[in-house]
Amino acid sequence: ISGLVMKVRNFLQKAWDLGIDDPRKFIHCLKVGLALTVVSLFYYMRPLYDGVGGNAMWAVMTVVVVFEFTVGSTLYKCLNRIVGTSLAGALAIGVHWVASKSGDKFEPVILGTSVFFLAIAATFSRFIPTVKARFDYGAMIFILTFSLVSVSGYRVDKLFELAQQRLSTIAIGTALCLLVSMLICPVWAGKDLHDLITRNMDKLADSLDGCVAEYFTESSNTDDENEQDCRKKLQGYKCVLNSKASEDSLANFARWEPAHGNFGFRHPWKQYLKIGTMMRSCAYCIEALNGCINSEFNAHEFTKKHLSDVCMKLSSHSSRVLKDLAIITKKMTKSSTIDFSVGEMNSAVEDLQNVLKSLSTQLSRRPPLTVINEALDENETRDNPISTAILIPLMDVLPLVTLSSLLIEITTRIEKIV
Amino acid sequence: ISGLVMKVRNFLQKAWDLGIDDPRKFIHCLKVGLALTVVSLFYYMRPLYDGVGGNAMWAVMTVVVVFEFTVGSTLYKCLNRIVGTSLAGALAIGVHWVASKSGDKFEPVILGTSVFFLAIAATFSRFIPTVKARFDYGAMIFILTFSLVSVSGYRVDKLFELAQQRLSTIAIGTALCLLVSMLICPVWAGKDLHDLITRNMDKLADSLDGCVAEYFTESSNTDDENEQDCRKKLQGYKCVLNSKASEDSLANFARWEPAHGNFGFRHPWKQYLKIGTMMRSCAYCIEALNGCINSEFNAHEFTKKHLSDVCMKLSSHSSRVLKDLAIITKKMTKSSTIDFSVGEMNSAVEDLQNVLKSLSTQLSRRPPLTVINEALDENETRDNPISTAILIPLMDVLPLVTLSSLLIEITTRIEKIV
Repeated sequence: ISGLVMKVRNFLQKAWDLGIDDPRKFIHCLKVGLALTVVSLFYYMRPLYDGVGGNAMWAVMTVVVVFEFTVGSTLYKCLNRIVGTSLAGALAIGVHWVASKSGDKFEPVILGTSVFFLAIAATFSRFIPTVKARFDYGAMIFILTFSLVSVSGYRVDKLFELAQQRLSTIAIGTALCLLVSMLICPVWAGKDLHDLITRNMDKLADSLDGCVAEYFTESSNTDDENEQDCRKKLQGYKCVLNSKASEDSLANFARWEPAHGNFGFRHPWKQYLKIGTMMRSCAYCIEALNGCINSEFNAHEFTKKHLSDVCMKLSSHSSRVLKDLAIITKKMTKSSTIDFSVGEMNSAVEDLQNVLKSLSTQLSRRPPLTVINEALDENETRDNPISTAILIPLMDVLPLVTLSSLLIEITTRIEKIV
Repeated sequence: ISGLVMKVRNFLQKAWDLGIDDPRKFIHCLKVGLALTVVSLFYYMRPLYDGVGGNAMWAVMTVVVVFEFTVGSTLYKCLNRIVGTSLAGALAIGVHWVASKSGDKFEPVILGTSVFFLAIAATFSRFIPTVKARFDYGAMIFILTFSLVSVSGYRVDKLFELAQQRLSTIAIGTALCLLVSMLICPVWAGKDLHDLITRNMDKLADSLDGCVAEYFTESSNTDDENEQDCRKKLQGYKCVLNSKASEDSLANFARWEPAHGNFGFRHPWKQYLKIGTMMRSCAYCIEALNGCINSEFNAHEFTKKHLSDVCMKLSSHSSRVLKDLAIITKKMTKSSTIDFSVGEMNSAVEDLQNVLKSLSTQLSRRPPLTVINEALDENETRDNPISTAILIPLMDVLPLVTLSSLLIEITTRIEKIV
């Protein structure tokens, strides 16, 4: 029994930590409780109950189903629910009118077949990617409402009144949800996405820096705590690798949100996804680099020392560029620091290239080209024994340079729109 | 207007293609239509309607909400719905009994606060990762039912009867859903996951092979169609990179499914996730390799020719290993072919190593170790000018070897359990 108690305690402890890490979760729970309590007032207060009657049930249901963590997803569900319900209700009443004109015998047949075919159509539409991303919930609500109304229309007489009452209670529920979720400590999906992207940039920079530094300094006797902290930073790129799903869903919800904070109504959320993809391709490179470094092989000490300075310099400059980018994206302003750091990074690339040249024993044509091409050239002129360690940083620079130039473009574009 | 018509037509065409690609989607739509029509019989047939009355609505609602594409997700939702509803219903009736004993004044207060606090607790539990994965829907249904029952209990007299009827209609709905989804062309999440993994293995093998082959043969004048086909194969690894989310959700649903086909009840679905992760780390390497190849630099023709044979051999052997693995996982039997191909791959690794040795101009200690360590050694002794192109295949071999040895273990384990 004591084992079970321990398990439960551990579980609760973990759950509590989860809330401490992100207090917004506690607040969200409170918000749900508040919204539900307010909506149940419709039952407890006689004048309100007389207004809507037993249909108040639908308001409660709407609140429970629609209330989500971020404003964006709540809005998405609210809009989908209202549009889906009204469309389906109108259609169902139309079909019901036709069916009621066609005699007692045909009525259930017409109603049944219309439910059958509309259910097929709506279900199929949920498989289409664009519909799935934006109206998945709406399609479900459409089927639900249509079948409920058309089917119960067979037994209920005052169908129109019923539909109207139901719609108004749903509207009450959604309005309440929107008010609570937007006015009390709102959690904006757009802001979350923005923070996620900038945080990931920082993480990338840290792990790129840490990775190369660890390799070249190697087992400097730092204390244990520092070591663990360092290791955690190094693993940062793994978060970047796995953040695709959350980025996608956040961007999807962010689209529904009205203007808030620094973000306009038609903020270019898709650009964030592009940046995310580019960062992931950087992370792939870091992953490969990390694999090289962790494999237990020893390069020649001499060449390693020879190269360590330039490599460290390059990696620190590239991570500087990333961090500058993070700051720029955070502030959404274009600063000249970024151009400066990109320039520094490029000069570091050239330095590394020169060192490699001095090491090389073979000759190769090297036409003077742009920076990116020079980085490529370096790959070509690799002929020193510890290429594994240096090759990947160079490979890494390639997407970094592309990324940074693209990012500058994007930030200017963001600037224009904001 | 004609532009609009064209757009609509394109859209419909795309949707239709989607269905043609995977006819199970059409079948799924038909199944939903069927289940809905059957459940609406409760309204149309007098004896059935007399049995459940207006509560038949809940059966319809259950069918719409619960019916999902795979059996696993349908089962997950059904079980969650039933358990959540019964638990919440029982609790709500208990709270209602207590409240009704405490006088008219306190009744709404007690009901309201209980709704408030239970909503907070249930909402918070949905943030806990393990609960989210398995009981997210159940928690939502719990809040929904509890608040509905306890709130409407204030106005309805025969609460117990109401709850019982509602539960029985929900049971009817879920039973119908399960029957239809499991008996008519079932789509098993487990089988989907299995297929996804084996398909991804094939794709990885194809793109690894294609990548290296393309680099070394270079612009052989094949016709355009063939070219496009080839390019498509090459991009296969990108699917592997992005399949994490679908793997996770499929594995999550597969856990709920009963034994079917070759899969036992407690099939080790988690192993599939592990294999998926390993394949993804391979795909990262291929991504890096691809980046190298696509960058427009020309290695020295001589060394390239010198190395092309061994590299091609190595890549074809490694992709052979992957394909064998795919076959093994498909059949879930252990065959000796895999050992043979792993052996061949290892000898190819050694060959490449030897060629590199003959190229090398510098000496380095090379102690005879196991195969994996030898692959590492190669990385160390790289000293030829076109290392970029060869380095990555070697890097690639590293996880491949690890992967294959791990996979052999896993297949034997799967064998044991199946």
